[in-house]
Amino acid sequence: MPKPIRVTIWNEFIHEQAVASVREIYPAGMHAVWAEAIQRHCGDGVTIRFAFLDQPEHGLTEAVLAETDVLTWWGHAAHDRVDDAVVERVQRRVWQGMGLVALHSAHNSKIFKRLMGTSCMLRWREAAERERVWIVDPSHPIVAGFTEESFELPQGEMYGEFFDIPAPDELFTISWFEGGEVFRSGCCWRRGKGRVVYFSPGHETFPIYHDPHIQRIIANAVQYAAPTGAAYYGEGRNIPEALSPIAAIHHVDASLHEKK
Amino acid sequence: MPKPIRVTIWNEFIHEQAVASVREIYPAGMHAVWAEAIQRHCGDGVTIRFAFLDQPEHGLTEAVLAETDVLTWWGHAAHDRVDDAVVERVQRRVWQGMGLVALHSAHNSKIFKRLMGTSCMLRWREAAERERVWIVDPSHPIVAGFTEESFELPQGEMYGEFFDIPAPDELFTISWFEGGEVFRSGCCWRRGKGRVVYFSPGHETFPIYHDPHIQRIIANAVQYAAPTGAAYYGEGRNIPEALSPIAAIHHVDASLHEKK
Amino acid sequence: MPKPIRVTIWNEFIHEQAVASVREIYPAGMHAVWAEAIQRHCGDGVTIRFAFLDQPEHGLTEAVLAETDVLTWWGHAAHDRVDDAVVERVQRRVWQGMGLVALHSAHNSKIFKRLMGTSCMLRWREAAERERVWIVDPSHPIVAGFTEESFELPQGEMYGEFFDIPAPDELFTISWFEGGEVFRSGCCWRRGKGRVVYFSPGHETFPIYHDPHIQRIIANAVQYAAPTGAAYYGEGRNIPEALSPIAAIHHVDASLHEKK
Amino acid sequence: MPKPIRVTIWNEFIHEQAVASVREIYPAGMHAVWAEAIQRHCGDGVTIRFAFLDQPEHGLTEAVLAETDVLTWWGHAAHDRVDDAVVERVQRRVWQGMGLVALHSAHNSKIFKRLMGTSCMLRWREAAERERVWIVDPSHPIVAGFTEESFELPQGEMYGEFFDIPAPDELFTISWFEGGEVFRSGCCWRRGKGRVVYFSPGHETFPIYHDPHIQRIIANAVQYAAPTGAAYYGEGRNIPEALSPIAAIHHVDASLHEKK
Repeated sequence: MPKPIRVTIWNEFIHEQAVASVREIYPAGMHAVWAEAIQRHCGDGVTIRFAFLDQPEHGLTEAVLAETDVLTWWGHAAHDRVDDAVVERVQRRVWQGMGLVALHSAHNSKIFKRLMGTSCMLRWREAAERERVWIVDPSHPIVAGFTEESFELPQGEMYGEFFDIPAPDELFTISWFEGGEVFRSGCCWRRGKGRVVYFSPGHETFPIYHDPHIQRIIANAVQYAAPTGAAYYGEGRNIPEALSPIAAIHHVDASLHEKK
Repeated sequence: MPKPIRVTIWNEFIHEQAVASVREIYPAGMHAVWAEAIQRHCGDGVTIRFAFLDQPEHGLTEAVLAETDVLTWWGHAAHDRVDDAVVERVQRRVWQGMGLVALHSAHNSKIFKRLMGTSCMLRWREAAERERVWIVDPSHPIVAGFTEESFELPQGEMYGEFFDIPAPDELFTISWFEGGEVFRSGCCWRRGKGRVVYFSPGHETFPIYHDPHIQRIIANAVQYAAPTGAAYYGEGRNIPEALSPIAAIHHVDASLHEKK
Repeated sequence: MPKPIRVTIWNEFIHEQAVASVREIYPAGMHAVWAEAIQRHCGDGVTIRFAFLDQPEHGLTEAVLAETDVLTWWGHAAHDRVDDAVVERVQRRVWQGMGLVALHSAHNSKIFKRLMGTSCMLRWREAAERERVWIVDPSHPIVAGFTEESFELPQGEMYGEFFDIPAPDELFTISWFEGGEVFRSGCCWRRGKGRVVYFSPGHETFPIYHDPHIQRIIANAVQYAAPTGAAYYGEGRNIPEALSPIAAIHHVDASLHEKK
Repeated sequence: MPKPIRVTIWNEFIHEQAVASVREIYPAGMHAVWAEAIQRHCGDGVTIRFAFLDQPEHGLTEAVLAETDVLTWWGHAAHDRVDDAVVERVQRRVWQGMGLVALHSAHNSKIFKRLMGTSCMLRWREAAERERVWIVDPSHPIVAGFTEESFELPQGEMYGEFFDIPAPDELFTISWFEGGEVFRSGCCWRRGKGRVVYFSPGHETFPIYHDPHIQRIIANAVQYAAPTGAAYYGEGRNIPEALSPIAAIHHVDASLHEKK
């Protein structure tokens, strides 16, 4: 039996408390819906905890992150309120192997933009329009279990191109919108030893996170982003002794080169 | 006649002033050698200016960047002294289309790490060992003009794997080191509308920047990283009017969603 | 003045002769429209010749290919009639640096499938529906000159995902279709020293090749796919003499290893 | 308990029978060594069968392939004797999801070249030189379990760049050779729904396949290349009925477009 994946679900958790219509759709918060879906799909394969913006250090202390294999992230109204020190801490954990699954409006979160190096800007429209999600890599583990080439969401927020991200290492879905746009809605990248997944379908004012396709993809993404253990990853370091003989080593004054 | 590429060569310019042995190799500064090489290879195709760490705003004002098509970057001893506001400004210009050519120890510069989203750490050794640079993409414009599969540098600083970068969009050279390491020494990525090139061979205590192969690659990299004009790139924005008809638009309260 | 790009436009040239409605749209053949567009955009930068299915060796002799920098390809009804020996000859020229621009139904040509290694199958529908082409890499030279994020074709043949291609090295457009599909419509790969471009918008029964956006993209693709000269590309070969000393060379009987 | 991965190990099986020195190293054939290593690492996770060049249909009948999840391939002296019909059959199975692990001289096999679309040529030298394998993606599942950044093979056949492959979707190792070359020795691509792995270290006249690092990588590669089930993959097909309404459908004569 493999060790279960330790998931931390991070939720800004503002809309569900502040907006009645959102609370109606997600009475216990969106995090409760994600947790239920991940648990149902992964069974004993996961253990789940929550973290929120309003907790000290946003609930993401060194100790919590050290015990997190995959962090899912949702923010929308308060990206700016996330502390830079916490963002940097999360980034370092990703480098060391923690997976990050960024959902919907997390495209604009500090942590996602830092890992991407781009503006992550996009076009958007809230018109409750139809979205159809097309699978463009049927071999990808995040779409495991899908027996159709596409699925529909009756009402979605449009996120459209140009989406300012680095070319994804893996692109697994492209979304079609009734109003005329397309969007690279399912993308993966590696940063350090960690995997980053972005998946856009989802919204607080539509019941998208109750959709079974979306729930399966989020659960699959958690499994995909979990660290494999894989190989050595360490700090940069000086290696004064060569592995193979060097013809003639001459003296080099290294005094100015200590910081790499 | 195409408009010439406006190049700004940025040099930390510390070692050449502080260390006699470096000054001997690069008496007018490394930037003078790069400038001469770029000018010789590109002819009327470029105009060149310089910028230095010790200038106000490190010589990289909004005005200078607005008139820069390609920025080359060299820092080593004083990465931390580069102002964050300037780094952010350079990053935004890259997104808008300015090319960035990061040389050798610029792997550890703030601007390069910000654009990559990774630690950019590596192994290194200063043992004056032989480095052989292998071309692994003979179609790449940065290696245009090379009639051999590889070339040698008699004495180089070893930079070795694991090099903590995002998987390059294009990998054009891999270096072999006498002491036993390999390194992805020539890499390209796109960030926003701009191209980023990293090329590692080069060092302040070896006369590597006088080497004709290295000079040709740097000049080629400048031409490769120059903006093509290409297509529209703008801010993220709300598109309330759909291009194609949406079956039924219902009211959405957008008050919480203004910041994307 | 750089040497002009020598373009060979290959056209199956069946529909324009056999079908009255196609002939009306392209009375001189589609190749005449492509040639005019490429010439107009590239000016003295190109010289153009034609080749057709019904010519000996389909007009693609060793001599013609040796003088071709970029080959554009259009076939639809008679992919199977293209001789395997010619296909192999074209493939070898691509490896040596010739660019290939595959248009629309050329996704199913022998040469494209050989270069891809996949089935290149897709979904399709001829319903004269609206297609909107979205630029997803504004830095890409093939979309140079586009000042809007997308453009429309009032009537197109739908080509939809899943499109069975290797993950493109560069993806520059994604198409949206009125009927509900999306498609990776503009893709680039490198094979050997040559660049391969696939661009799907275009059809014999719609006047798409008269559209100025499409014409510009085809002309840009020709310039992009042109060989840069770049670096050495040769045959695989045995290198009995090492560049660097090997501690102890022992005898190896190579009799069984002559073919690599 | 997941269903075990059904592995078919294909071996040309010529050198071990024809050459005494090879037989000494691999008395039961190299396939026996691979099988033992895969079984030991994967335990009940795999079932293994063998197939050989000299069997009818090279042991790769439709029935065998239908029951194969991952095929490992080794050929060297007799690539040309592999029947084209069998090659095509294997290729189709890869598209449908079967993994292929190509070992060492399989770079020059018909099946590998067909899946790549390139010449797959390289430089080589048999001088029993030291090879050091560097891990350049520590997150990759194929290098799971490696606690050092590199490992050494005391005597290897040199395979060097330029290696004429498409840019790998994933590059997990680069090899360093004592004689001065580098090589992208561990590469992955996707073709259709199937994963293709190439791993070069290994040779019939050196006991490399007895090396525990190599054995672990081959076993990991089998697990990585195993189909995940993932999503729908089918034939290209006409979709006359659109999913979303099209403003005005006009009649199109499809008689010429039946073959896609």
